[in-house]
Amino acid sequence: MSAPRIFLYDSTLRDGQQTQGVDFSVGDKLAIASELDHLGIDYIEAGWPGANPTDDAVFAAAPSFKRARLVAFGMTRRPGRAAADDPGLQRLIGSGAPAICLVGKTWDFHVTVALRTTLDENLRMIEDSLAACVAAGREALFDAEHFFDGYKANPSYALACLEAAQRGGTRWIVLCDTNGGTLPHEVEAIVGKVIKVIPGEQLGIHCHNDTENAVANSLAAVRAGVRQVQGTLNGLGERCGNANLISLLPTLMLKLGYETGLSEADLAHVTHASRFVDERLNRTPNRHAPYVGENAFAHKGGLHVSAVEKDPRSYEHMAPERIGNHRKILVSDQAGRANVMALLDEVGLTLTADDPHVGQLVEQVKARELLGYTYDGAEASFELLARGLLQGLPRYFELDSFRVIDERRWVDGTLVTLSEATMKVRVAGRMRMTVAEGNGPVNALDLALREALLAAYPTLAGLQLTDYKVRILESGAGTGAITRVMLECSDPSRRRWTTVGASTNVIEASWQALSDAITYKLWHDGVKA
Amino acid sequence: MSAPRIFLYDSTLRDGQQTQGVDFSVGDKLAIASELDHLGIDYIEAGWPGANPTDDAVFAAAPSFKRARLVAFGMTRRPGRAAADDPGLQRLIGSGAPAICLVGKTWDFHVTVALRTTLDENLRMIEDSLAACVAAGREALFDAEHFFDGYKANPSYALACLEAAQRGGTRWIVLCDTNGGTLPHEVEAIVGKVIKVIPGEQLGIHCHNDTENAVANSLAAVRAGVRQVQGTLNGLGERCGNANLISLLPTLMLKLGYETGLSEADLAHVTHASRFVDERLNRTPNRHAPYVGENAFAHKGGLHVSAVEKDPRSYEHMAPERIGNHRKILVSDQAGRANVMALLDEVGLTLTADDPHVGQLVEQVKARELLGYTYDGAEASFELLARGLLQGLPRYFELDSFRVIDERRWVDGTLVTLSEATMKVRVAGRMRMTVAEGNGPVNALDLALREALLAAYPTLAGLQLTDYKVRILESGAGTGAITRVMLECSDPSRRRWTTVGASTNVIEASWQALSDAITYKLWHDGVKA
Repeated sequence: MSAPRIFLYDSTLRDGQQTQGVDFSVGDKLAIASELDHLGIDYIEAGWPGANPTDDAVFAAAPSFKRARLVAFGMTRRPGRAAADDPGLQRLIGSGAPAICLVGKTWDFHVTVALRTTLDENLRMIEDSLAACVAAGREALFDAEHFFDGYKANPSYALACLEAAQRGGTRWIVLCDTNGGTLPHEVEAIVGKVIKVIPGEQLGIHCHNDTENAVANSLAAVRAGVRQVQGTLNGLGERCGNANLISLLPTLMLKLGYETGLSEADLAHVTHASRFVDERLNRTPNRHAPYVGENAFAHKGGLHVSAVEKDPRSYEHMAPERIGNHRKILVSDQAGRANVMALLDEVGLTLTADDPHVGQLVEQVKARELLGYTYDGAEASFELLARGLLQGLPRYFELDSFRVIDERRWVDGTLVTLSEATMKVRVAGRMRMTVAEGNGPVNALDLALREALLAAYPTLAGLQLTDYKVRILESGAGTGAITRVMLECSDPSRRRWTTVGASTNVIEASWQALSDAITYKLWHDGVKA
Repeated sequence: MSAPRIFLYDSTLRDGQQTQGVDFSVGDKLAIASELDHLGIDYIEAGWPGANPTDDAVFAAAPSFKRARLVAFGMTRRPGRAAADDPGLQRLIGSGAPAICLVGKTWDFHVTVALRTTLDENLRMIEDSLAACVAAGREALFDAEHFFDGYKANPSYALACLEAAQRGGTRWIVLCDTNGGTLPHEVEAIVGKVIKVIPGEQLGIHCHNDTENAVANSLAAVRAGVRQVQGTLNGLGERCGNANLISLLPTLMLKLGYETGLSEADLAHVTHASRFVDERLNRTPNRHAPYVGENAFAHKGGLHVSAVEKDPRSYEHMAPERIGNHRKILVSDQAGRANVMALLDEVGLTLTADDPHVGQLVEQVKARELLGYTYDGAEASFELLARGLLQGLPRYFELDSFRVIDERRWVDGTLVTLSEATMKVRVAGRMRMTVAEGNGPVNALDLALREALLAAYPTLAGLQLTDYKVRILESGAGTGAITRVMLECSDPSRRRWTTVGASTNVIEASWQALSDAITYKLWHDGVKA
């Protein structure tokens, strides 16, 4: 008997957008969707067409995936109106997404109190709306909002809603614990009842973490027979978050033996995917995150360490490499070495593990990490560090000095802020001095530096700074602490690269990242110094 | 039939101490122990006498509790030596703690590989050691290390270890999932087997969160019959942490109806207890923590908000007041009237819905969100906006101009970056001009501004900038795009507030956030301009 196939559905870009402090740009959404596709997720819910300009732009960009299916999220038609006359629903169909997920009510209380319609009309709304999607040639999914609370209050009505969805021709019926208050044994019992009416091959589960049981609830549902699991990367989501796909994936595949769209090799990217999203959202990765946290396989104390070195099973429930994480032992450099080998591989530099350069590079990376740099998410800076050590890099330019002045003062009756950078830099054998005004200190620095370099290196005209993020590393000291800057650039060849800088001074950190970004481009353009 | 009584055992001060970055002082330990006693926890494991000077000092202080029992943690005697001759064990007994918890091996692999002794000698070690504690008049507890892995590998030996503990006269046998890899259905099945041999009234459970199931595993064990639950506050602990007592308490009491040492009134202190520990450890409380997080009952989006106001059950699984938390309405780009009303209420400004100011405020919030501001997480800036509109705010200071210079140049043979801010500001009727050097432009601005204000407003000396985040809003334009700054501050009264600034110029955005942060503090200090 082969293991059942579980379908994975990611809602980071829709339900995860409800997280406080999370505000996706169009670029964020497209980058995360591409990462999810690369990982092997089956369905990617990219947003709600018509809800806001960002989501409209994402669907207008019509992201195409290698493996995943794009899903547009929305709701069933309004009461008392035909599906064909419902602008919201037509907008979903018009979005072009091959799959459409419609949320609808299944709790009688919500139908009458929040929707203010009749129980019968709600059933018709569900059936009609899904049928309209199917008639338009789309794969339809039904998100049964508040299903568990609804089932507890009125089981026959809740089930009638699911049957209406079935009549509408839905491919999937997703049981949602919208308020997050249901416990695992309740999920198990209720799914056990539902599955007598709706086959497990058609059922999905969508949980929230309000009692810290979202992962356990999802597992309980899968063990009871559902075959689709919804969740978000790192458990992003409103209130206490959604079920964390990052934690569910290794458990489902490695502990429970289910098949998913991921190969075992794909699973080794799960740690990277988790950190990628945090970097993209400028959030500090949770060190204690199950499976993927920096400390998930950390060992403190000599007794544990020597036992682990005798046999990892003694204090580890799983081999960290299987999920792309690594053991962290304070007294050994094993951890750093695995990470550095993986990074080298990623930037296309192949070295054998016993090459003495690897040890030197591990030491350099560790020393720089202590200073606040990170190379997870700043592969371009890592590549420069490695190439500098292994083969040397051309010195395209040498900074002598710069000065940035930001002035806020009255101009024609309004307060305005102006930034101006002066730059003195040696390039192609002679000292150049330039000055530029910018929208801010970093923009001014960038313009002044490129003004100095452009004559010698004309390809720099195509460089674009596409993102800039700043984070304080040590909480508790505010603007006096270490500042880390991540700078993303792109160029006409659609290459995209990220560099890092770290300093107590944000201007200094920005300069480092900028200087790396330019060196990286020149090196990849094949320019000689 | 009355509900079974569950005994709660807190290990924050012992297992929680293994958390990376957590380093308890004696004062921390005594303060947290007192908080746990006040909350109504049954057992407080305060440390390991003999392991380090801090733990020795804690036991020497002989904390006395109103309700809880103090527990000393340690391990069974070493192989091949009498309990009376084992200095570690004698030290535990000598600690004076009324209860002693001894960890011992129950996984045959660990007995032979890590302990390097025979299976029989390990059984004698368990029995002898516990008997010695009982003979000294102490309540004895046995921590069955690696019990679930041990049971899977060799069930009869694992059970034999528990029976040895019983012969030693232990009060409790605690089943530990030391490596954290066991899943809820496995816990349920294995506890179901154990309980045929050891009565549930004698069994406890101790879980780790390596698969994000520590809470669910603890609940599965309780439902299978164990009567003691071990965990830590906020799930502190090594790797991915221990079972989170803060999440378990409301579920056990309010959802499953178990009796504990806490009354319902005590339970309303659980949010405070959670935040107290974070404050004590200088950690930022997790906004998304189940039950007690700042966002656990947060609502975003007009539709949700109006439904919750009609009937809280519609989007809340529990009344937040029962655990000492409260509902929070987030302002976001979906900000409708209802959101603004609720937020006004939260910051203590009561207006009727038909007050014309409400419409004006909704318009202002929307207009500012278009410019890049967000009030989702920057309630202090929202409050200033609202107060400014409704009642006017004192003008504590008026900026005339500032200038920030960041210079990178050679000083004594190295390149250094220096930041200096000059500030011209009208305060208390006269123009002040100040200058300050900082670690970066914002630090310099902060220092120069406070230098100008301190004489007029001495409470500003206590202001601390605790976090600073920068993000570019629209990808695609890099450092020329809109920059949003979020600034978090705190003061000696432990108040914490966040302000926002947005501009194409990061310095200007930082200035706005800084200026709001200072105005907010002065207003809440009751200062008159």
